[in-house]
Amino acid sequence: MECQFEILEEIIDEDLDFTIESLGERKIENPLKKEPLCYVDDNARVALKISEAYLKKCLEEQKLPPTAELAGPRPRIYFDPAKTRAAIVTCGGLCPGINDVIRSIVLTLYFSYGVKHIFGIKYGLQGFIPKYGHDVMYLTPEVVSNIHELGGTILGTSRGHQPIDEIVDALERLNVQVLFMIGGDGTFRAATLIKEEISRRHLKIAVVAVPKTIDNDIFLTSKTFGFDTAVEMACQAIRCAHTEAIAVPNGIGLVKVMGRYAGFIAAAATLARKEVNFCLIPEADFDIEPPNGLFPVLERRLESRKHAVIVVAEGAGQKYVRPDPPEYDASGNLKLGDIGKFLKDKIKEYFTKKGIEIYIRYIDPSYIIRSVPAIVDDRIYCGFLGQYAVHAAMAGKTGLMVSYLNDRYIHIPLTAAVKKRKQVDLKSRFWQSVIESTGQPPLKNKA
Amino acid sequence: MECQFEILEEIIDEDLDFTIESLGERKIENPLKKEPLCYVDDNARVALKISEAYLKKCLEEQKLPPTAELAGPRPRIYFDPAKTRAAIVTCGGLCPGINDVIRSIVLTLYFSYGVKHIFGIKYGLQGFIPKYGHDVMYLTPEVVSNIHELGGTILGTSRGHQPIDEIVDALERLNVQVLFMIGGDGTFRAATLIKEEISRRHLKIAVVAVPKTIDNDIFLTSKTFGFDTAVEMACQAIRCAHTEAIAVPNGIGLVKVMGRYAGFIAAAATLARKEVNFCLIPEADFDIEPPNGLFPVLERRLESRKHAVIVVAEGAGQKYVRPDPPEYDASGNLKLGDIGKFLKDKIKEYFTKKGIEIYIRYIDPSYIIRSVPAIVDDRIYCGFLGQYAVHAAMAGKTGLMVSYLNDRYIHIPLTAAVKKRKQVDLKSRFWQSVIESTGQPPLKNKA
Amino acid sequence: MECQFEILEEIIDEDLDFTIESLGERKIENPLKKEPLCYVDDNARVALKISEAYLKKCLEEQKLPPTAELAGPRPRIYFDPAKTRAAIVTCGGLCPGINDVIRSIVLTLYFSYGVKHIFGIKYGLQGFIPKYGHDVMYLTPEVVSNIHELGGTILGTSRGHQPIDEIVDALERLNVQVLFMIGGDGTFRAATLIKEEISRRHLKIAVVAVPKTIDNDIFLTSKTFGFDTAVEMACQAIRCAHTEAIAVPNGIGLVKVMGRYAGFIAAAATLARKEVNFCLIPEADFDIEPPNGLFPVLERRLESRKHAVIVVAEGAGQKYVRPDPPEYDASGNLKLGDIGKFLKDKIKEYFTKKGIEIYIRYIDPSYIIRSVPAIVDDRIYCGFLGQYAVHAAMAGKTGLMVSYLNDRYIHIPLTAAVKKRKQVDLKSRFWQSVIESTGQPPLKNKA
Amino acid sequence: MECQFEILEEIIDEDLDFTIESLGERKIENPLKKEPLCYVDDNARVALKISEAYLKKCLEEQKLPPTAELAGPRPRIYFDPAKTRAAIVTCGGLCPGINDVIRSIVLTLYFSYGVKHIFGIKYGLQGFIPKYGHDVMYLTPEVVSNIHELGGTILGTSRGHQPIDEIVDALERLNVQVLFMIGGDGTFRAATLIKEEISRRHLKIAVVAVPKTIDNDIFLTSKTFGFDTAVEMACQAIRCAHTEAIAVPNGIGLVKVMGRYAGFIAAAATLARKEVNFCLIPEADFDIEPPNGLFPVLERRLESRKHAVIVVAEGAGQKYVRPDPPEYDASGNLKLGDIGKFLKDKIKEYFTKKGIEIYIRYIDPSYIIRSVPAIVDDRIYCGFLGQYAVHAAMAGKTGLMVSYLNDRYIHIPLTAAVKKRKQVDLKSRFWQSVIESTGQPPLKNKA
Repeated sequence: MECQFEILEEIIDEDLDFTIESLGERKIENPLKKEPLCYVDDNARVALKISEAYLKKCLEEQKLPPTAELAGPRPRIYFDPAKTRAAIVTCGGLCPGINDVIRSIVLTLYFSYGVKHIFGIKYGLQGFIPKYGHDVMYLTPEVVSNIHELGGTILGTSRGHQPIDEIVDALERLNVQVLFMIGGDGTFRAATLIKEEISRRHLKIAVVAVPKTIDNDIFLTSKTFGFDTAVEMACQAIRCAHTEAIAVPNGIGLVKVMGRYAGFIAAAATLARKEVNFCLIPEADFDIEPPNGLFPVLERRLESRKHAVIVVAEGAGQKYVRPDPPEYDASGNLKLGDIGKFLKDKIKEYFTKKGIEIYIRYIDPSYIIRSVPAIVDDRIYCGFLGQYAVHAAMAGKTGLMVSYLNDRYIHIPLTAAVKKRKQVDLKSRFWQSVIESTGQPPLKNKA
Repeated sequence: MECQFEILEEIIDEDLDFTIESLGERKIENPLKKEPLCYVDDNARVALKISEAYLKKCLEEQKLPPTAELAGPRPRIYFDPAKTRAAIVTCGGLCPGINDVIRSIVLTLYFSYGVKHIFGIKYGLQGFIPKYGHDVMYLTPEVVSNIHELGGTILGTSRGHQPIDEIVDALERLNVQVLFMIGGDGTFRAATLIKEEISRRHLKIAVVAVPKTIDNDIFLTSKTFGFDTAVEMACQAIRCAHTEAIAVPNGIGLVKVMGRYAGFIAAAATLARKEVNFCLIPEADFDIEPPNGLFPVLERRLESRKHAVIVVAEGAGQKYVRPDPPEYDASGNLKLGDIGKFLKDKIKEYFTKKGIEIYIRYIDPSYIIRSVPAIVDDRIYCGFLGQYAVHAAMAGKTGLMVSYLNDRYIHIPLTAAVKKRKQVDLKSRFWQSVIESTGQPPLKNKA
Repeated sequence: MECQFEILEEIIDEDLDFTIESLGERKIENPLKKEPLCYVDDNARVALKISEAYLKKCLEEQKLPPTAELAGPRPRIYFDPAKTRAAIVTCGGLCPGINDVIRSIVLTLYFSYGVKHIFGIKYGLQGFIPKYGHDVMYLTPEVVSNIHELGGTILGTSRGHQPIDEIVDALERLNVQVLFMIGGDGTFRAATLIKEEISRRHLKIAVVAVPKTIDNDIFLTSKTFGFDTAVEMACQAIRCAHTEAIAVPNGIGLVKVMGRYAGFIAAAATLARKEVNFCLIPEADFDIEPPNGLFPVLERRLESRKHAVIVVAEGAGQKYVRPDPPEYDASGNLKLGDIGKFLKDKIKEYFTKKGIEIYIRYIDPSYIIRSVPAIVDDRIYCGFLGQYAVHAAMAGKTGLMVSYLNDRYIHIPLTAAVKKRKQVDLKSRFWQSVIESTGQPPLKNKA
Repeated sequence: MECQFEILEEIIDEDLDFTIESLGERKIENPLKKEPLCYVDDNARVALKISEAYLKKCLEEQKLPPTAELAGPRPRIYFDPAKTRAAIVTCGGLCPGINDVIRSIVLTLYFSYGVKHIFGIKYGLQGFIPKYGHDVMYLTPEVVSNIHELGGTILGTSRGHQPIDEIVDALERLNVQVLFMIGGDGTFRAATLIKEEISRRHLKIAVVAVPKTIDNDIFLTSKTFGFDTAVEMACQAIRCAHTEAIAVPNGIGLVKVMGRYAGFIAAAATLARKEVNFCLIPEADFDIEPPNGLFPVLERRLESRKHAVIVVAEGAGQKYVRPDPPEYDASGNLKLGDIGKFLKDKIKEYFTKKGIEIYIRYIDPSYIIRSVPAIVDDRIYCGFLGQYAVHAAMAGKTGLMVSYLNDRYIHIPLTAAVKKRKQVDLKSRFWQSVIESTGQPPLKNKA
């Protein structure tokens, strides 16, 4: 469901630079042996802002809208497959489909290009650093043949920073020419530093990223892989919460789902089930107290319908639960307070004080949402991401992520991708549809 | 998986009375119009203890082993279907398959016997009590046609006691002749009191129970419906926990599953996945401290294998978390302390103190385990339970539960069914298989 | 997976008219009570062709690219909700998600707009025609609350033409102002005729279509609802075929999937599983005979790898099986010959003649692919389609379908939508990715 | 669902010999290091016939009912784990759970007993025969760690006979002491011959079988593994057939499921869904013609309810479709005619002649039913079967199958197991429940 593009169009800044860096001239014929028409030229670009109003303005000003380079195999490539050694590393939290991406990269390198030496770096960036003593995996079609049936990542992962020069040392030691990094914002920043260090050493190593985040909050990509699967799982929890809520008089089903800064999972699952009465996300501040906060509105809901379902993203309502002073995890992320437990306890308290008997069932599916194998739609998506990442890398492109935007696969420079974080736009039709489905009021005591 | 019968055989007491009460002579021909051979005679009984050793003893002592009456349609019935009005009530917590049982009862009453008036009592025993103001549902084949696609109970449920005389008043008011009660121990006790009050009033109302408990801890029934589904769901959580655990160095996946007094779900899920390294259940006391408790053993496991999966039943390890003084819920159940959160926090603490970096992922699927629709195996089981409950009730039998034991459907007096609670026998091959699969030591500092 | 937009861009004809018809001036304030920013203006349009090359040409020629009207709620509406009566009809074959669309239309009409009178027309267009004697259903939030858990359509469906004037008679008789038609090409043609007859009679009835086809072959919409679910189910069959194929020496798994004129299901499922060695679709002619046809290539595959998986769309290879003379079904569709059975028999024959022992397992999941409930992604999509259809209809727009294209929901005139059929473009990167994944040669004896 | 035991009790012949053969004295202490109570003594036996009437007769005649040896670990074992080499072979058709059995055998041998040399024989009995050139697989915990996520058998399989002496030659060559054979009747016969040849050569090799058949028709075992999964999949097809049938006026859903001689899958799936109106199985002969055959009864059903669902086992109604003269496959099985296609065509013909418009949707899930991974219940079952097979083999027992009967795991001599084929007993309450659910009459023109 790439239902939030409108969100992106508004925040795409015309001054962003969408130029993709290249390691050098491409002198080798692409071994794919396709008909010429099927190759993509670097000049094939697509517009990122496509509203008529904006295009009219372009017409008037005689300039083109911002465009991005199309992904796809180039007629000539930079690296000689016979001599190329590739490495794949997966960083950060788990996400459904990582193994599908790994499998697609390996199969495309091996069968389409003939690259036979593919290293799997273990446990994220740690795998590059000698002191951890993690072995390298050798990835072959045989090794990856069934990994898509498993959740997680066969390579393992880790969070946090590692010394950039040691990472590039490892790349040199392994004699790697193309590096695939599957990760999020933090990984993109590391990738950029690695790319710079590579350049400083005058090495010819392509660094290509595949965007990964369960929260779907990466800028300039309409949806990240695994998101649909996460929503599918979130919906299972919501279905149970609804079943519990309607099974007793004054039943309340409360579900917490992932979403630190962006409520996409909560919102999409709400749209899918249409049984949710309150969808609380980080982007939409809400109060809990009377007269207009969550609790009194919930009370009225129970009065009229005898049950209610609440979905809350983990990053929502932090004003009530944020640790003070703030705490940070290893990657430097702000630690969140537990809004789910807070709501469960406070709702109980509120109704107990009022002498109203309610039954609240709290479900926190937590890791169940992200550790399952991907559903088919995500699989296809992961397959393309892997293929296009290989095409980009073999063409000698570097410092980019493969993205899906506006119905096309494109190349986005990592420097542009980290400029912002994607969030649910409260003015968008996407969020308005959520509000229409839940029927929830603004839940604010003062505008 | 009726893998625990051995457990039952040992605790079946020969002095238990397995006689089923009857409302009176059966004068009406069963409208099922079966061939004579397909009917069941009251004298059709099966042995409950069948080990050769025990049977040898019987031979020597010239007595029969304890036996129970076979369930099934009787050639003649007590109630005239044309004049019969039935009621169904569901009590206590949710369990996958309740709607299947309701559907089966309704379809069998309606199509097999021609009973057209079937009431659904709303929200458990509350539905009988006027002050709650719950309406009665009218159950027809149309109403129940798709309810098996939904989890929960379309009738709603509640916990706690209600005045027995008011319940029987309601039965009289509704002019009900057969009452089906779907519930656990507490419900059986209420059913017995209702039956006695019925008898005191010289009414002719059959009370038939269908045993329901997500924990699978009802005595004299080898498995309760919904258990397989619950294990299926628990396995999904364990699969995710394992995926998370192996994805990072020193990853620990911790899953809490239902099971207040009995660890059947934890044990069966452990057997199904075989990825669990520690299975903690209420029946098996364990320590956490060195030298032999959980934490040092876990430490050794991490040293050798770098990851671990722990499954804990909610009723396990209560010595560490039990509220003091004890607290009770509305049904009079002892409130449990949260062993899952306790373990998560203490394990972190233990390894932090030791300076060992670990990653613990805690999953509490909670209600997800019990609110889903039933899997097919449970559906078939529920279908039989419903059919046999109707056969028993129409034959004028009362004060019994329909049970599945020793590969047969039988009738068990409710008074016998509440004599004990079924638990995992630590000497049984069932539990020994669990231990074999996990490889866990006794986790005890003193025998 | 909107992976085939590129296909669409090329065939979008600039001369197509994308103007949406309107019943009249909109004088009633939209009851949604949104902030002004959240409404959509009729002037909000998006470009349909967005390649830089094309936009450059536009710049030079000082004209806009073809654009379509954005879907969404309008600030003012045409119909007074209090007096509006709506009807919904579902036509043609089943597709996962129809009930979700119905549910979304009903919930949006009822809760967002306050339209309380909603008719469900039974069994497609038949439901309008008195001689069939089908009753009308009354659709309320209660009636539709759980229908998304069921596959199929609660309204029933049928194929074939019905007299247009009798249909409009029925609309008059029911005093309906907005008609929602869920169907494909044939339905769009009927909808256009109905709209014309309505206009001829000077009635004010809005006709809004939601595109439905399991084959995903409707022009000007990047994906039809239910497609992802169909691919998910096709993948289950392919997974089984692969399992069977590798279980025996020289095992061949052969799967036939839906796709009369377009091979999208076959192609997408191939991409998702990556275990398919031959993907045969209607768009790509193939031979079976030596030297370059399917059979000798299959033989070489078996020699080297000992197993093979073939996926064939039902419309592929018709040159071998087409009935002669051609036959047509009730809707006027050409009847297809059974390419699955043909391949199964002929492959057996080919290898028997060669004295090579093979085992071929043929799986035809047939209706399993289209009769299941929708997966979550399709559910969200169906939810939006239903909401946007209501917004369009209440605004008095008519003769249009709600479409998803280029990451936006838009309005497309039905007259434009029936101009072409969408097919897999053999030059597209979508199909090239399939070919890359299977590794199959052109399978043609002469170019 | 061990719902058919009653069937078995009646056909258990008292004269069957349930004695298990042993290779010799058990001198080695079992390395399981269990408490003594947890071991099983050879004298631990359970009754196979347990009806009170039968036991009364036993009492009168002063004899014991037929009993079988309990499965489980023996306190002392025959083989020295350090020197033992094991082999596993899978024969015949696929079945959900084979990989779980393999995994359980390997994990139990490796971790519980310390047997480190485990061979996987490729492609069934072919794998023993040099001329096929199949390599042997080396099975370790690592190799089998994720195989339960896959359907099929990682070892591959084949049908048909192979020379017994060459098989035993191979066992000698591999220096194997324990052989596990996973298969059905044919495999049991081969196992018996292998055991005899082993004995003739004075070798000490234990041969232990795990019963496998998708049709659930093996004698003396209440359910075979994979059966629940097969029923689950069959139910998916039936659900779709029902959805299709109710979607059109006079819709007929027809589903063919596996079941050559026994209709257990068809019957159990009918019980699970309760939407089936006709369940046709090999055990119950039926006519199709008027006045009482299937077609006129189907006509009446359509008249009253407008739709119908038919489930037919592949072995049903063979009198209409059996090839004449009879044909046989490689294993010597009679080839079946295609009753599904026959019914589809003939039903169409019947109603066309009558001028009644009907829509028949035929679904043949075929291999989908058997090639999927096992559901959890089957997984647990497979886990036990594997464990008990290892316990039996290590104790030096031979010529037996591990069976589940009467709620216990027991040893059954292969010679007894092949005496009969289990079928649905038309007089059993199991089948009567099916009839009650469908409401179908006998469908016979003459009794």
